Amino acid sequence: MSQLTFIFAAMNAGKSTLLLQAAHNYVERGMAVELYTAALDTRAGLGVIRSRLGIERGASTFNADTVFDHRILERDTACLLIDESQFLRPVQVRQLHRLAHTSQVPIRCYGLRSDFLGHPFAGSAALLTLADEFEEVRAVCGCGKKATMNARLDATGARVSAGEQTLIGGNERYIAMCPRCFYLDSAGEQDAQSTAA
Amino acid sequence: MSQLTFIFAAMNAGKSTLLLQAAHNYVERGMAVELYTAALDTRAGLGVIRSRLGIERGASTFNADTVFDHRILERDTACLLIDESQFLRPVQVRQLHRLAHTSQVPIRCYGLRSDFLGHPFAGSAALLTLADEFEEVRAVCGCGKKATMNARLDATGARVSAGEQTLIGGNERYIAMCPRCFYLDSAGEQDAQSTAA
Amino acid sequence: MSQLTFIFAAMNAGKSTLLLQAAHNYVERGMAVELYTAALDTRAGLGVIRSRLGIERGASTFNADTVFDHRILERDTACLLIDESQFLRPVQVRQLHRLAHTSQVPIRCYGLRSDFLGHPFAGSAALLTLADEFEEVRAVCGCGKKATMNARLDATGARVSAGEQTLIGGNERYIAMCPRCFYLDSAGEQDAQSTAA
Amino acid sequence: MSQLTFIFAAMNAGKSTLLLQAAHNYVERGMAVELYTAALDTRAGLGVIRSRLGIERGASTFNADTVFDHRILERDTACLLIDESQFLRPVQVRQLHRLAHTSQVPIRCYGLRSDFLGHPFAGSAALLTLADEFEEVRAVCGCGKKATMNARLDATGARVSAGEQTLIGGNERYIAMCPRCFYLDSAGEQDAQSTAA
Repeated sequence: MSQLTFIFAAMNAGKSTLLLQAAHNYVERGMAVELYTAALDTRAGLGVIRSRLGIERGASTFNADTVFDHRILERDTACLLIDESQFLRPVQVRQLHRLAHTSQVPIRCYGLRSDFLGHPFAGSAALLTLADEFEEVRAVCGCGKKATMNARLDATGARVSAGEQTLIGGNERYIAMCPRCFYLDSAGEQDAQSTAA
Repeated sequence: MSQLTFIFAAMNAGKSTLLLQAAHNYVERGMAVELYTAALDTRAGLGVIRSRLGIERGASTFNADTVFDHRILERDTACLLIDESQFLRPVQVRQLHRLAHTSQVPIRCYGLRSDFLGHPFAGSAALLTLADEFEEVRAVCGCGKKATMNARLDATGARVSAGEQTLIGGNERYIAMCPRCFYLDSAGEQDAQSTAA
Repeated sequence: MSQLTFIFAAMNAGKSTLLLQAAHNYVERGMAVELYTAALDTRAGLGVIRSRLGIERGASTFNADTVFDHRILERDTACLLIDESQFLRPVQVRQLHRLAHTSQVPIRCYGLRSDFLGHPFAGSAALLTLADEFEEVRAVCGCGKKATMNARLDATGARVSAGEQTLIGGNERYIAMCPRCFYLDSAGEQDAQSTAA
Repeated sequence: MSQLTFIFAAMNAGKSTLLLQAAHNYVERGMAVELYTAALDTRAGLGVIRSRLGIERGASTFNADTVFDHRILERDTACLLIDESQFLRPVQVRQLHRLAHTSQVPIRCYGLRSDFLGHPFAGSAALLTLADEFEEVRAVCGCGKKATMNARLDATGARVSAGEQTLIGGNERYIAMCPRCFYLDSAGEQDAQSTAA
């Protein structure tokens, strides 16, 4: 019986490190893994998963047209690991969930829960709705509490509260925050009006 | 530091029992609680949370216009517990998340993750995106595995695969299923086409 | 593939309510369950599991001589549920762990983690060491934080810091506390010396 | 409010990688961390935490005499991270639990749950009894299931079922197994007799 697991965290918590360690664990035991990452995230190069601790591994890429059915699994695949899974479409998450439960291959998706405004990514919402297991990777806020939110910063380091949901970037563009800091700093105040009624 | 916790499960797992037990634990220690349930769910009567084990408690009701800010909290409220929270609107979940992190009152929301087609409820997707902690209540499928999906049945007990997302009902209308049974029975096959591409 | 799950909490969190709800879920789906509780806990009568919310169910009892191997399982048992599992002997936990993984019957043990001095029960330590999954039931301290410790009270309500590990009782004899309150009240101070070096 | 978290897994799951990533997350946000590892584990050199993915960091060492009270915390320590925590003594775990709840410094202990015979390490049993939160790092068995047990191998790769609890080693000496494989291979059979009554 295999499952779909969603491993989530705020930005810069080490999701890619965990993915690479999980892959290493399978390979070390002589088992084959398949890695995917989003085609639109080329920070480390196309089809490369790289951790901020300096380790990396090649991966296939997915885009909006990728169909995750039996055909993507190699015969001996022991585990399918997908990074940047917030960029999956809901229908692709549904395919992965079905695939996990109709093949015997466990599927581990790594990604963010919310965007820079605290709103769901459609792919993450689907993963949170369907996944059999969750694993949270602990990110830390500047105040020391658990960070679950992602704030976007402009070039001066000030928080941005408008813009496209998808804007690829790392430390220089995003900062993980606990909800209290997220709501109570200046940009947070503007948020208050938008959720008043 | 208080938090927003989302306690989720498939249908008929005992979410209301857990809510009533959590409320009992606070009251037993001399602490005041506030209970809410959805105005649109009058199975046990308006503003009544009842468990299938026969225990019940009165509750305030929420509807689409309810604003969950400081004004709903009594001065001595030690915990706010909300049943049928899949019927919250995303903006209400945002208010609850902000309230948990700016008042010192922990907030516990109990509800379903997905509807009878395996699609997210908007309120649940928001709770899954923002909640600080998750607690899963284990429901069991007819095959014995963990049930995470909810299938809707018609009066003859056959699965229904079209209809409104919201249709209030209990055992007679819904059955909890594991993903494998959900996908592999007849209705599941029709689902396969819809997620093929 | 079945598993051994340890559902733990501090005193008075509602562990028995959860056990009775889980049993109800199986029976409601037409599946048979087997219930066990400790012979030495006769608060609700010998072989009765009763929740403080007033619901109860009959159960077989276990003592130090009970051997948990295939012979205790009825042919159609879908789940084995054991209350007061802190009173199991480590060898019995080992038998249950083996049974869960060599039969196809999931086993759910409900119990405390620590005694009134914060020390492990041998049975709980074995469950915490071997169980495949944990589920924590949230108990609340008088200060509102999560309670994970159990303090014992004498007839006047004062904390007791010496005595037998096993002394059956409920609300009148035990109170759940968060670690901070457990360590910082008077009895907690005496504890400080004992852990200084 | 800070907490004691126990991050556990079977052998070779990547516990040290996670510890080093967590430390990196704090340092990247300009916050100071303190790292400890067991003096008796010199595989990577005395006072070095090294991950099998090739990353490492210096650490203080603890032994049986180390007292974990306020004096070990530097003024600006934002998090205390301890590797190989199965080698802590129960009284040291008690000190760490008290320290987490009386200072404002979160403490994260990384370690094994059970030894090569499936028995608790005393330090792990204490951590499992007292820790406020658990995080499990998934290790994989040769059969693909989740590995929670640790088998010891001799120089020929055969399982060993007798010997000292503490024998430092890595891949060459230990292999992570799921309970079913642990119990059902030859060495597992001998184990059956020892737990029969």
